[in-house]
Order: sequence, then C-alpha cells, then structure tokens
Amino acid sequence: MGARVDELPLPPLASFASDNAAGVLPEVMDAVVAANEGPALAYGADPWTGRATAALRGLLGAPDAEVALCWGGTGANVVGLQCLLRPWEAVICPDTAHIHVDECGAPERFTGCKLVAVPTPDGKLRAEQLPALLHGLGDEHHVQPTVVSITQSTEAGTLYQPDELAPLAEAAHGHGLLVHLDGARLANATAALGGDVRASTTSAGVDVLTFGATKAGAMYGEAVVFLRPGLGEQVRFVRKQAAQLPSKMRFVSAQLEALLTDDLWLRAAGHANAMAALLAERLAGAEGVAVTRPPEVNAVFLRLPSAAAVAELQAWSFVWDWDVAVHEVRAMTSFATTEEDVDRFAAGVLAIAARHV
Amino acid sequence: MGARVDELPLPPLASFASDNAAGVLPEVMDAVVAANEGPALAYGADPWTGRATAALRGLLGAPDAEVALCWGGTGANVVGLQCLLRPWEAVICPDTAHIHVDECGAPERFTGCKLVAVPTPDGKLRAEQLPALLHGLGDEHHVQPTVVSITQSTEAGTLYQPDELAPLAEAAHGHGLLVHLDGARLANATAALGGDVRASTTSAGVDVLTFGATKAGAMYGEAVVFLRPGLGEQVRFVRKQAAQLPSKMRFVSAQLEALLTDDLWLRAAGHANAMAALLAERLAGAEGVAVTRPPEVNAVFLRLPSAAAVAELQAWSFVWDWDVAVHEVRAMTSFATTEEDVDRFAAGVLAIAARHV
Amino acid sequence: MGARVDELPLPPLASFASDNAAGVLPEVMDAVVAANEGPALAYGADPWTGRATAALRGLLGAPDAEVALCWGGTGANVVGLQCLLRPWEAVICPDTAHIHVDECGAPERFTGCKLVAVPTPDGKLRAEQLPALLHGLGDEHHVQPTVVSITQSTEAGTLYQPDELAPLAEAAHGHGLLVHLDGARLANATAALGGDVRASTTSAGVDVLTFGATKAGAMYGEAVVFLRPGLGEQVRFVRKQAAQLPSKMRFVSAQLEALLTDDLWLRAAGHANAMAALLAERLAGAEGVAVTRPPEVNAVFLRLPSAAAVAELQAWSFVWDWDVAVHEVRAMTSFATTEEDVDRFAAGVLAIAARHV
Amino acid sequence: MGARVDELPLPPLASFASDNAAGVLPEVMDAVVAANEGPALAYGADPWTGRATAALRGLLGAPDAEVALCWGGTGANVVGLQCLLRPWEAVICPDTAHIHVDECGAPERFTGCKLVAVPTPDGKLRAEQLPALLHGLGDEHHVQPTVVSITQSTEAGTLYQPDELAPLAEAAHGHGLLVHLDGARLANATAALGGDVRASTTSAGVDVLTFGATKAGAMYGEAVVFLRPGLGEQVRFVRKQAAQLPSKMRFVSAQLEALLTDDLWLRAAGHANAMAALLAERLAGAEGVAVTRPPEVNAVFLRLPSAAAVAELQAWSFVWDWDVAVHEVRAMTSFATTEEDVDRFAAGVLAIAARHV
Repeated sequence: MGARVDELPLPPLASFASDNAAGVLPEVMDAVVAANEGPALAYGADPWTGRATAALRGLLGAPDAEVALCWGGTGANVVGLQCLLRPWEAVICPDTAHIHVDECGAPERFTGCKLVAVPTPDGKLRAEQLPALLHGLGDEHHVQPTVVSITQSTEAGTLYQPDELAPLAEAAHGHGLLVHLDGARLANATAALGGDVRASTTSAGVDVLTFGATKAGAMYGEAVVFLRPGLGEQVRFVRKQAAQLPSKMRFVSAQLEALLTDDLWLRAAGHANAMAALLAERLAGAEGVAVTRPPEVNAVFLRLPSAAAVAELQAWSFVWDWDVAVHEVRAMTSFATTEEDVDRFAAGVLAIAARHV
Repeated sequence: MGARVDELPLPPLASFASDNAAGVLPEVMDAVVAANEGPALAYGADPWTGRATAALRGLLGAPDAEVALCWGGTGANVVGLQCLLRPWEAVICPDTAHIHVDECGAPERFTGCKLVAVPTPDGKLRAEQLPALLHGLGDEHHVQPTVVSITQSTEAGTLYQPDELAPLAEAAHGHGLLVHLDGARLANATAALGGDVRASTTSAGVDVLTFGATKAGAMYGEAVVFLRPGLGEQVRFVRKQAAQLPSKMRFVSAQLEALLTDDLWLRAAGHANAMAALLAERLAGAEGVAVTRPPEVNAVFLRLPSAAAVAELQAWSFVWDWDVAVHEVRAMTSFATTEEDVDRFAAGVLAIAARHV
Repeated sequence: MGARVDELPLPPLASFASDNAAGVLPEVMDAVVAANEGPALAYGADPWTGRATAALRGLLGAPDAEVALCWGGTGANVVGLQCLLRPWEAVICPDTAHIHVDECGAPERFTGCKLVAVPTPDGKLRAEQLPALLHGLGDEHHVQPTVVSITQSTEAGTLYQPDELAPLAEAAHGHGLLVHLDGARLANATAALGGDVRASTTSAGVDVLTFGATKAGAMYGEAVVFLRPGLGEQVRFVRKQAAQLPSKMRFVSAQLEALLTDDLWLRAAGHANAMAALLAERLAGAEGVAVTRPPEVNAVFLRLPSAAAVAELQAWSFVWDWDVAVHEVRAMTSFATTEEDVDRFAAGVLAIAARHV
Repeated sequence: MGARVDELPLPPLASFASDNAAGVLPEVMDAVVAANEGPALAYGADPWTGRATAALRGLLGAPDAEVALCWGGTGANVVGLQCLLRPWEAVICPDTAHIHVDECGAPERFTGCKLVAVPTPDGKLRAEQLPALLHGLGDEHHVQPTVVSITQSTEAGTLYQPDELAPLAEAAHGHGLLVHLDGARLANATAALGGDVRASTTSAGVDVLTFGATKAGAMYGEAVVFLRPGLGEQVRFVRKQAAQLPSKMRFVSAQLEALLTDDLWLRAAGHANAMAALLAERLAGAEGVAVTRPPEVNAVFLRLPSAAAVAELQAWSFVWDWDVAVHEVRAMTSFATTEEDVDRFAAGVLAIAARHV
C-alpha cells in the first residue's frame, strides 16, 4: 500500500483522527508557563483556582454553583454522576453516549449504578422516550432511574437546539429525574449556537455538567459544575476518592482561566467548526464520497466506496471507523486545523475515492 | 496575631508546607512547551510516551517492565494495587501509609480490599512484623493478605536502607506476598542513597511501584511500573476504568523524559534533601525548638514549645501539624527551596520559639 | 370492583402469580425437620452438605465440579458471575434476563461489570448474535465481553432445545467467552426435555450454573456449580464476601438432598409443567382470551380484551402484568397447583374475558 | 493421639465450638412447618411478615421502626451499614468486631467505606476513645467517621451494661455519629441483663441494629431494625441489591414470630448463659485450667497448660482457638447445651489439663 500512498497528495499536518490529537492553544500554554511562579498551596487553595471558579460561575450565570476541577473527561463524568446517585439508581442515556461506550465501564464501576442506554437516530435523547423507561419505580427488584445524561454536542456530531434541550430537561424534572450534561465539546456546541452557553446549561435546566477544557484546547483538566444547589455538597470527597483531585491545581485553573478570557474557547471552537464545514464543502458532490449529514459542529462523517478505500485513507492520514458496514469514517477538526490541512485532506479523500469508485 | 507576625523576620518565598506547593522545574516546563508541536495520537500512541517508557525501563534495568502513566499519585497507587488484588484480598501497610490515611479511602473503594495497617515507630515496616499478620490464610471468613505496600522515602521522612528493603521483600515473597512500593518521593530516597534507584526497586525485589514525578518537580503525572512479568497485563483496562488515562499523554511523557535526562530528578531531589539538612543544622541546639530526628530526606520534624507557638508559625509561614499532642510540625523542602528560604524560615522559627520558651 | 368479583367463580387456592408463591414440598420439609438432630459444624463442614454435593455432582456427571450452596437466586447468580469476571469485563445476556431486569443492579454493583443486554424475540440468545457484540476487543476504552449468560428455562417461558444450547455454547467458547446458565427453573426445563439435565448443562458446554432449588419446591437455597475446572477455585471467598454463606448449612443441604432423591425435583416440575399445559388447553379457542404461545414449561402468557379485564383478573386472583400495551399477563404454575386450581382459574379468566369482549 | 482420646471420658453430645453448631429450637421448627400452608405472595407481602414486624416493633417499643428481614448475619450487617454510609465515610468499631475480622471484608466491599478498628481490652468501645479518632473531619484527604458500630454481647464474651451503652451512644451522637449495634447475640445479652432489650437498644440510643435470630435458635434469618426515623427509607433497595431479600419470606418471619412468642428467645438464651456459668463453675480452681474471666453471657474462655493440651481437647471435642500464644480457647454454649454436656465437657477438660500440668 505504501506505493499507492506515495502517489497521493501530501497529507495534512493536522490529524483528523480526533480533536484530542491537537496540542494546546498558545494562550493556554502561556498561562501554564506564567502560573509557574513561586509557591502555591496545593489542592485548590491558590488564587488561580479562585479566579477560574469565579470565571466559570460568571460565564454560566450561576454565582452559587459548586465547581470541582478534575483531571480528565471520564473522571469528571464519574465525579459528577456519583454526586447524583445511590447505587441502586440508574442513568438514562443515548446508546452512543461516551459514558456508555467509551469509558470502559468506569461509571458503573464507580457508582455501582446501571446505565440504561436508549437507541436514538442521531445521538439525541428526546422527552418522548422517557416515560417508557420509567416502569418499576418504587419496586425493589428494579434499578431506579434517577438521572438523564446527555452530551452537547453529541458523540454523533449533532447538536441539541435550545428548544430541544429545555423541554427535555423539563420532562426529566417532571419525572423526578436530574439532568447531567457531558460537555466535553460544549465549546463547539456553544460556538455553533451563537455563543450563548447558558442556552445549553443554566437556562436549559441542566443540573450538573462537565465543562470540557481538553478538547477545547487545554493540555488537561475538566470542570464539574453543579448548577442546582446542594448537589455538589460532597463533591470534594467524591473527587478525592475518585483520584481526580489535582495536587498542583493552579496549572489546571490557569488553563481554564485562559480559555475563558476574551472568549478564547469559543473562538477556537468556532474555527474548528468552520474547518469541518469547509471540509464538507470541499467534498460535496464528489463521486464516491458521501458526507453523511451536514456537519453541525466539528465532526464530518464520510462514506467511501469500499473497505479498501477506508484502509487506504487510514494509511495516508488516519481517521477512525464510524460504521464499518457502510465504509463510514469520522473526521474531526480542532482549533489547530488549518485551511491548508482541509485542502490537503479533501484532496486525498477525493483521490482515494476516485480510485475505488 | 497579625501584629506579632509583623515583628517577625520576612517569611521565606518558598512554602515549607508541602513539596507539592512548589511549581515545576524549568527544564520540565521547557519540555512541556516543546511537546506542543503538531498533532499526536492520544492515549500514548505518540513518540514522547515511547521514549519516556524506554527511559524508565533503562533506569530501572527492567527492559520488559510494563509502564502505565497516570494522572496523579492516588490514581497511580490505586491502579497499581488493583492489578495485584482480588476483592477478598488485603494489603499490609504501615499505619502512616499515604494509601491508608491520605487517600480518602480510594484504595478500598476501588479494589474492594481491606488495608491492614500496622503500627511502626518510624513509618517503616519490618519483616518480623509479617508473620503475626498472616493468620486466617485459606479461611473464607477472613480477608487474605496478598500485598505488602511500603513507601520510599516514608511519610515519616525516613528511608529504608537497601539492607532493610531487600530482606523485607524477601520475607514478603517467602510468605507468598507481592511487594508494592509507593515511590511518590523515590527521587528523594534515591538521592539520599547515592543515586542507585535500583537498590530501592529492581534489586530490592519490589514487584510494582509508583514512580513519583509530581513531587520531583513535574506539573502532574506519575508512572506505575510493573517489574514482575505478568502483573501489568491488564493495566490498560484498569487505568482506563479508574479514569487515570491521560488523553494528550505526550505532555505527561515529555515531563518524565525531561526528569530522567541528565539525572535532573536526582539533582533536584538532592537539593531538596540538602535544604532539609541545612534547616536542621540552623535549628540545632536552639532553645525551645527540637528537631525530632535528623532529616534523612526532605522532611524536617520540629517540636515547638506550645500550641500557641505552632499557631504563630503557621500564621507566619504555613506548615502542617504532625503531632498536635507534642506541638510537632512537619517542614518540607523541595527543588525550589533556596538557602535564603531556609535562613528566613529558620530565623522565624527561632524567633517564635524564643517568645514561647 | 368488589361486587363484580363476587359474581365470579371461586378463585383457586393456589396462586398463579409466581412459582415462589408456593410453599415447600412435603418431602423437603420432612428433610429439614429430620436434619434438626444434634449439633453440626457450621458453614458446610457437616455430612448433609457432603451428601448434597455428591448428589449434584452425580446428577450432572461432573465428579470434580466445585459446588457452593448459597441463600437465594440473586446471590447465587452474583457469586457465580463474580468468579468469572474482572471489573472491566462484560456479560452478554438477553434483555429479558433476570440478572438484567430483576436483580436491582446487584450483578453490576457486586462485579463492577457492565451487562450487555441484547433484544431477542423469545428470551433466547442465538449464536448469530454474538459477533456483532464483540467489537472493541483489546481496546481499553471499551468493556471486554467475557461471559454469555443465559437462562434455562427462560424468563419468557421458553426453552432452549439441546440442539440450540450446545451450538450457542460452542460459539461462545469459539469467541473466548465463558457460558453462565441461570437455572432458577432448570427443573422445569429438564422435566420438559425428558429428564436429561446434562443436555442443558454438562453436555451442552455450560461452564457455570445456578442450580435452582427454591422455585423447584425448596424453602430457600440455591447451588452454584462450576463445571469447568478452576473457575470455582476462589468461590468460598467470593461467597462469604457476598454474604451468601449460610451458617447452619445443613438445612440448605438437606433440602437439596431431598429434591434429588428419587427425582423429586423432576416430578414436581413435571407436574407444574402439566398444569400449565392444562391451563392453556382450558383456555384454547375462547373468545376474548389469547394464549400468546403454547407453554413450554410452567408459564402461560394470556392476552385479555382490555386493561379493565386485566385489573379485574388481578383483583380476583393476582397475576403479574407481562406487557401492559397488549393486556398480557403471565400465569405461573408450581408443584402445588392442582387440577382444581387450574379449572377454577380458567373459569375465572373465561368469565372475565366474556364480560369485556 | 487417637489412643489418648479413647482414655478420656465420653465427649458431650452438644458441640462447644460455636452457638451456630446447634440446630433449631423445636418451637421454631414447628412454626416453620406450620407456615407451609397454602400460597403466599413472595418478598414479604404475607401475613407472617406483617406479624413478625409488629412483634419486633412492640418488643423494642418502636412503633415506627423500619424492619428488614435478611438471610444471615453478615448480610444484615452489610444492609444496615449501607443505609447509613456514603463511600467516603467510615465506621469506628472495636478491633475484635465481627464486621472487621469475620466477614471477609464484606462491609468494605459493599459500602466502599473504611473500618477504623480500635483496640480495646475487652471488646467494648468507650466514649473516651472517640475524640482521638475524629481528626480530619471535613478534610477531603481523609475518610469521614460517621458510624460507631458495637456488638452486644461482644465477640469477646463481654456485655455492655446499660450505664455504659447509653453514654457511649450519647457521646457518638454528640460527635455527629450514628450508632449501629450488631445484635447477633442480643438474646444472650438481654437475658443476662434481666430481660430488658430496650436497655441495649431503644433506650440506649441505638440508631440501627441487627436483631440476631440464628444464634438465638432459628434456622436462618436476621432482622435489621432502624430505630431512628428516616434511616431505613431506602432499605428495600439496599437489601435487594445486596442479595439479601428472601423470596419465600414467610419462613423467615414465622421463625422470628415464634422466637418472640412467650419470650422463647430469652428463655433459650438464658439457658445458654446458665450453661456457660455452670461450665466456669465446674472448672474453677482446677490445676492447669484457667477461666480467663467470669462468663457474662454464653462464652467461656479457657487457658490450658500447652498447645499440646489444646490440640488434645480439639481432637476430643472441638473448640476454636482464641489466643494461640497463651493456649486459650473459646467454649460456646447454646440453647441445646445440656447439664450433662457441661459435665462431660468439664470432665474432659480437667482430664486433659491434668495430663499436661
């Protein structure tokens, strides 16, 4: 296959495999370097953490929100969910949810709870799906659904519109359920929705969220934010017992502060979204390549003519399979993707597709 | 109390509260910045991780060791122990062990196992203590001791000499137990022992260790190293399920690589140790201050005349209580402690002590 | 509704709600009384347990099988599964499985593992369903399927034929999976299959099973049997830690011994099956009542004309809902059901249905 | 050794190894047989369970107490404790506690919590011991003590007097701790204290207890009783998930009802206590045998001249080692122990001791 790769255009410098293949935003790296000044008490008793917490509360319009900084996305999800659940309770989520398919069972292992995974056409749960999942309430033989967990933007590259999210949360609350939002890509969603992060969080009725920093351009670190009073009261213990308490926390906080300064997180995510749109545009109408659906955020789903075409693309510039049965792959853009990257990647895809039509 | 503090000498710039109050070694920070170059596959499939792993194996003289990079110390301990234990088994450790008193029960929570904590005069377990702990073997009513966990250097600021460690490990193995070493301060221990890290690890018969990076001058990240073949076979799953898998792992690996280059980790730890020795020297023989024992690594334990003296010291330059009953506090040095810091801190301690004699 | 119930025929003495609404077989009760003779060491070091274990091994043709007696069905399932699983592994089962829907999450809670629940038309898993569930093997982000758990006879009242079970087990083994069988109603299945219990267990390739006693006519107690050498090596510890070790174990063992003497368990189950068949016969062709499928063991599924009809039936002689959407209920027979019970129950069903057509 | 055993007096018919080596009280067995009449809904929806619950509430003077019947002692302890604890909390108990040394880590495994085991001279915790155990409250690095668990009568054969128990509970409550009482031998304690069970429970300020039935003469079954309102609200889910929900529950309830009828439980326990006193009397002053302390309930602790003497005794009539270092064994009496058993056992002990002086 090497020979054939050689005949292809130059591959992009950026990887389209995942948004965590990118490095760190320069402004974030500068903040990390700047935070390395003098001593600071560990575990959050430092000025950076105070400022980052205030910035998050301000952004979300939630002055009393409990904020807990954690190491990574799986850890933040586990910490947030643990605060909401007793072990005989259950979490309702789409069957594409990261907590369900990509966290090696960490949520079940840590909380003891069952995840009730629901099929959806597009990664988005709907209020109408809830009632059928709520049988057996009060019956000791059955786990008790207590939390609805959704992802914004979703693992399927889709976006809840504000007029979808609020009714879903309202329905959940009406059934006595709490709403957890995995915001690993909340930046991309917010950029796509015009910059109003509260539309996907505070105003929508979300009770707890993971505010994603890593995929938004940080080196590491995520924030769990408890919008509903009381839910986060024990989070410090939960976080420590989950091994999610960063010791030199100032370096997490400095990153978050940098991301929230001058809307850096939104500008970076908006760029990633734009690069995904550009990629879709470059591939539109080409023979042998189908863009499965118009990208709503920073993921482009492509179908190629054959498994051989997919393998050739992966050898040239790696992307992950999405649906092997239909030769579909997922290409992700990030803050670090350039127009030239898109042009090169599109050229390669087109060249490979053309060979396999 | 503010008035009295004002009459004291200038406090040190460095904190003596903990070695994780220090920031990041400049060479480590440079390596982090340098690693922010282009894309890299996440989760360890990157060149930095390959090089850091090779460097650790080389250092330890263990070419086949399994190495798993984790976020932090508690996480690394939990991941390492989980690989050795089934939930009805137990860990024997000194009752001062970090895993026993400072991790909010994370080891029990994650492994399901009991910790059997043993009193010691100095934080060091001895081979002679093992037999009395091994009753009930094979009896289903009792947990089954399977692992001995020790810390080098210990939480009490002491050091296992090679001729203490090897016999302890040999005794443990003779009883069918595995040896886990919490090496959060392995750098300080190794520097104090003349630079031979294998004397505390591979040659001593340790089976699994946490190789500490954060307290040695990194921003974050620890390594779990499985020296005994086979023990780490499932560590990738254990680490992911424990939410200890860094996504942009290159930044952990780059730090580790920098620490191991040109013995940076040992030079930094040696400096910290020297500063502790200097502090003990500065305080020797002073009225009202007792250095409990000669510092072996980077901790100095001080007894002051009264609780009021301790409070005054804490208000002036914070350190943690060690034994409230005897007005004993623990002062920690780090790579970032300067001679001037020591001089200032010693002067303050002496001034406060003098007032309270 | 009371008035209308008064107009109905006399309800049956036996309950059709569940086979555990029945009491204890007289021969089993006699054995319990007889076992209350003199002292006996606790926890299984008694002659009754020795004899019951030998009887089970003989029945199954598995002289080396490890046998662990437990308190109840959920406990026995949890103990058996725990012996097969590490917490990042997963269990594939039909989505009607008792372990999935009726044990309040006990399997996840105790093992830490995810259950991968698969839709089936009839409660029976098929070999063809396995490959699609085995993606992500070796990938640390995903739980690792390790066990296939099936129920014989199933929660849907159906039966695996020997020529279905053996190929399924063979396929599972071919994929490196172990086979767990929940035999809560293995007696009914075996009676229906002509008395050859090995056809559903040893000969079929099952690795571990719960041998049900309670629903077969015991007061309490179930046996976990490890047919594959080695799998049960640690079961004594697992059982004790799961709080499933009966202290005065002779009384569990005496019941099991009585059940296995002169095929009592099969005669009792055969009677229950016959009563189900009789009930289906009595209801065949009646207006307003549909027997959903011919009973294969001791469950009869009935559809009534309306929710009101179901409510009336439940008020008169309680049975559980099976599918509310189609007014379907489940009627269970047991060793204690008499022909007169069946006649009365059928008469009541017909009378109620006639009112609602 | 066989020859030497032959020269000894006839061994007793009853076993002095443990009170669960006895069978079932005749009145309890009669109740079990009588309960086998007709159908009864499973899981507690039966008249026996209603009556047993009412009887327990009446006995304890706690009309609103939540009562949950479980299979056995370890299970009941686990269920009771789980209702009081979140996983970062801890249980303070004597280091002789059954939950600490005899349950194979089930409490840690199920609750996730640490047990803080405290040395005592006699198995009895004292209020003065609490303050030193309560450091680190509110600090996320340390588990948070939340429950004090004590045993009445203790594993060391001792008894809390009412004027010891109430102040201990008051002190616990004063520190914000809940009080759990393991009442596996509450019958023996109550009989020894003149029959007032409330002095050890309701009046003493106990919040939750395990009411022991098995050692009091039942076949199986224990009751968890929540005296403090609200604590047991979720117990049905906890019990089911812990696999401690008996299906044919009427047979547990019938036993409890029989035990509580006409003070059967107290008469049986009083007899056991009297047999222990008689044994101590028979052995008093004999050469080579020391009764360690006057029996307070149904345990007699004996020191023999040598390990060889202990082995000889165990071969003749088995008892468990208590302290191997001083050749101390524990002899337990039960409802089934007769005066003749005591005479025979005493004669054997004296004969063996005489040989080894």
